[in-house]
Amino acid sequence: MGRTGTNLPKVGQYNRAVVLDQIQLADGISRVEIAAHTGLTPQTVSGIVRRLIVEGIVREDGLQTSNGGRSRTLLRVNADAGYAVGVHFDPAELSCVVVDLLGRPLVTMQRPTPPGAGPQRVTAAVAELVDEVLLTSGVERGRVHGLGLAAPGPIDQAPGEIVGPPQLSGWERVPIKQMVAAATGLPVTLDNDATAAAIGERWAGAGRGVADFAYFFFGAGIGGGLVLGHQIHRGGSMNAAEFGHTSVRPDGPPCYCGNTGCLESLISPAALVAEARRRLAAGEGADSDLARLDPASTDFDSVRLAAASGDPLAVEVVDTAAAWLATAVVTVANILDIDLVVLGGHGLRHIEDRYRRAVEEALATRTMARRIRTVRVELSPLGPDAAVVGAAALVLHATYSPQVSELLSL
Amino acid sequence: MGRTGTNLPKVGQYNRAVVLDQIQLADGISRVEIAAHTGLTPQTVSGIVRRLIVEGIVREDGLQTSNGGRSRTLLRVNADAGYAVGVHFDPAELSCVVVDLLGRPLVTMQRPTPPGAGPQRVTAAVAELVDEVLLTSGVERGRVHGLGLAAPGPIDQAPGEIVGPPQLSGWERVPIKQMVAAATGLPVTLDNDATAAAIGERWAGAGRGVADFAYFFFGAGIGGGLVLGHQIHRGGSMNAAEFGHTSVRPDGPPCYCGNTGCLESLISPAALVAEARRRLAAGEGADSDLARLDPASTDFDSVRLAAASGDPLAVEVVDTAAAWLATAVVTVANILDIDLVVLGGHGLRHIEDRYRRAVEEALATRTMARRIRTVRVELSPLGPDAAVVGAAALVLHATYSPQVSELLSL
Repeated sequence: MGRTGTNLPKVGQYNRAVVLDQIQLADGISRVEIAAHTGLTPQTVSGIVRRLIVEGIVREDGLQTSNGGRSRTLLRVNADAGYAVGVHFDPAELSCVVVDLLGRPLVTMQRPTPPGAGPQRVTAAVAELVDEVLLTSGVERGRVHGLGLAAPGPIDQAPGEIVGPPQLSGWERVPIKQMVAAATGLPVTLDNDATAAAIGERWAGAGRGVADFAYFFFGAGIGGGLVLGHQIHRGGSMNAAEFGHTSVRPDGPPCYCGNTGCLESLISPAALVAEARRRLAAGEGADSDLARLDPASTDFDSVRLAAASGDPLAVEVVDTAAAWLATAVVTVANILDIDLVVLGGHGLRHIEDRYRRAVEEALATRTMARRIRTVRVELSPLGPDAAVVGAAALVLHATYSPQVSELLSL
Repeated sequence: MGRTGTNLPKVGQYNRAVVLDQIQLADGISRVEIAAHTGLTPQTVSGIVRRLIVEGIVREDGLQTSNGGRSRTLLRVNADAGYAVGVHFDPAELSCVVVDLLGRPLVTMQRPTPPGAGPQRVTAAVAELVDEVLLTSGVERGRVHGLGLAAPGPIDQAPGEIVGPPQLSGWERVPIKQMVAAATGLPVTLDNDATAAAIGERWAGAGRGVADFAYFFFGAGIGGGLVLGHQIHRGGSMNAAEFGHTSVRPDGPPCYCGNTGCLESLISPAALVAEARRRLAAGEGADSDLARLDPASTDFDSVRLAAASGDPLAVEVVDTAAAWLATAVVTVANILDIDLVVLGGHGLRHIEDRYRRAVEEALATRTMARRIRTVRVELSPLGPDAAVVGAAALVLHATYSPQVSELLSL
């Protein structure tokens, strides 16, 4: 109980990561600027930078002319100093990426997840895909720092297990971390898919340099990630940020999670399709393009494309979903008092502007602290690749990003 | 943007606070145990303890016999080494306490807040009450480290202002921190009342040594405090943990906060009374004791006392409220993956067991991570004094508790 202390070697590692974080966040930064931003002495910064240059992680690149006329050398991350592999294991699709030290994707590949496949077959498919991505990119396996694996939660981090995610029947306490490490020969970092995507946003997306933000991930379900005080908040069992299981409508449908009226059960792709079909079956939407199609062919893409082109029935379905989302976001903002909400994931495609507007308006008019500050809303610049880029960023984040938890660990 | 670095003096202060935290949390602890718990070297621990003893903050007290037969000196906080004053400013009541270094109350006093009073009169009343409490306790003002002021939010921390709390009309951006400091001659630490109470729980209540917990505060409204990673999470505008403004029923009543269906609007004392009266007016509860009284005399106390004695109508009103609460708690647990939920505040009296059971059952059956771990529920051992003890703890917490934010600040 209580907190743990810290010591000099840990402080050294921490400050090294703080300096690297500054270089990674900036597009060219001088030693003087790093000292000013971090509160470290110029001597400390110089010493750390010298070692980073010797190790090949950072390089000097160009000059900055200051007001006084003296020019300062700019530092950048040496993008080719190492690589990381990201794998996103989704029940429908496996994605794999190799990124450089700046988190920039070199090669990204997808293939369908073998339908109904068990852990062995999925692991084999992952290993094959990793081989292919490395081969195509020309990156040697020995220069890869590790493999980040983003998988559906819940996850039990200590043994590295997937604990029976709702979309994967038969996956009960699967030691996926160990299985993928054995199959690929790479050290594996396992995390919840939405947490991985949030780390991707912090590394290379909308959350760069933001202290407190919530990332909402729209896939087959609604997940999320939380950055609080510049750190990922995973929670005691590593399953925080389950924004899809915010209960927003107590008389709503029972959710597979055991709760009722969960956001996910109201606005998942399946829920939107069911709602559109229900309205069509009830004879609504005489003026809707959807009414002219075979009802069985109404799927998520047809609903969101129709909404994007202004079809009244589809717009109503999507705007109703956006209103549920806005309610959940206001609850999250009132609980956490965050700076920023990031919306991302492939489930947002074609409806992102309606969702964004609804959330922005709700944050501006319904949060407790709105008279003190406005919570910003951003669409993920990483788009549908957030989870797989985030999976690779897991490795880089673990290797390079300042972790208070490491500073304080035993 | 990005995190800041750290340096030796900050590390020294931090480790000092870590050691003091261990001594404060334990009922007698040896230097060897502190080293084992904190990961600090025995030399570092000895040096810090020596200085704490010289300063009079810690004392040696008794011996512990270890297995090997060698006895170790136990360390305790020297409770009389200093004091703190806590003030809880509630629209109905002012409370004031003086506590010793262990957070133990010496004298506690209450008096009604002058009804409808403006900032000047309230400040004067606070100063009088502080004088009286110090006089009665016999503690000299010079030995008081500071005054912690717990006030209704929202609060703007930088200028130390109360920003128009809903229950206080005419209190628009009142510089209360400065006013109370001038009137009492004590340095003032201002915080949200519910945050203060959460700090009190961390210091002297159910949250001792717990990494992640949510504290629900039941007063005229429903507030809260969050401890995440052993730190109070205040949020970017210092207004996190507004659990009362979790939206749980979208078709519920509009809340003064601008949102709809907020937990607070459904389960505040006023809401429970209104619901009991509504049911009585509708002819429900023929077998209820409440039906035999003048409806105008049905107040919060009569409803909760009736519920405590098993009155069916009152039980239904309270259990319905407990169910809304449970829904909000499950949402908080799914968002933050906490270890513990603490329920506290005077609004809980007589109904705490019903609330606790409902919350426990919901956490055991409806959270996402329930198969990995169970979230505990505790009733606040500080009871109705949580906010004022917490206000005093604010001062002690700021003075002694390890703050990662301080370790990392510029």
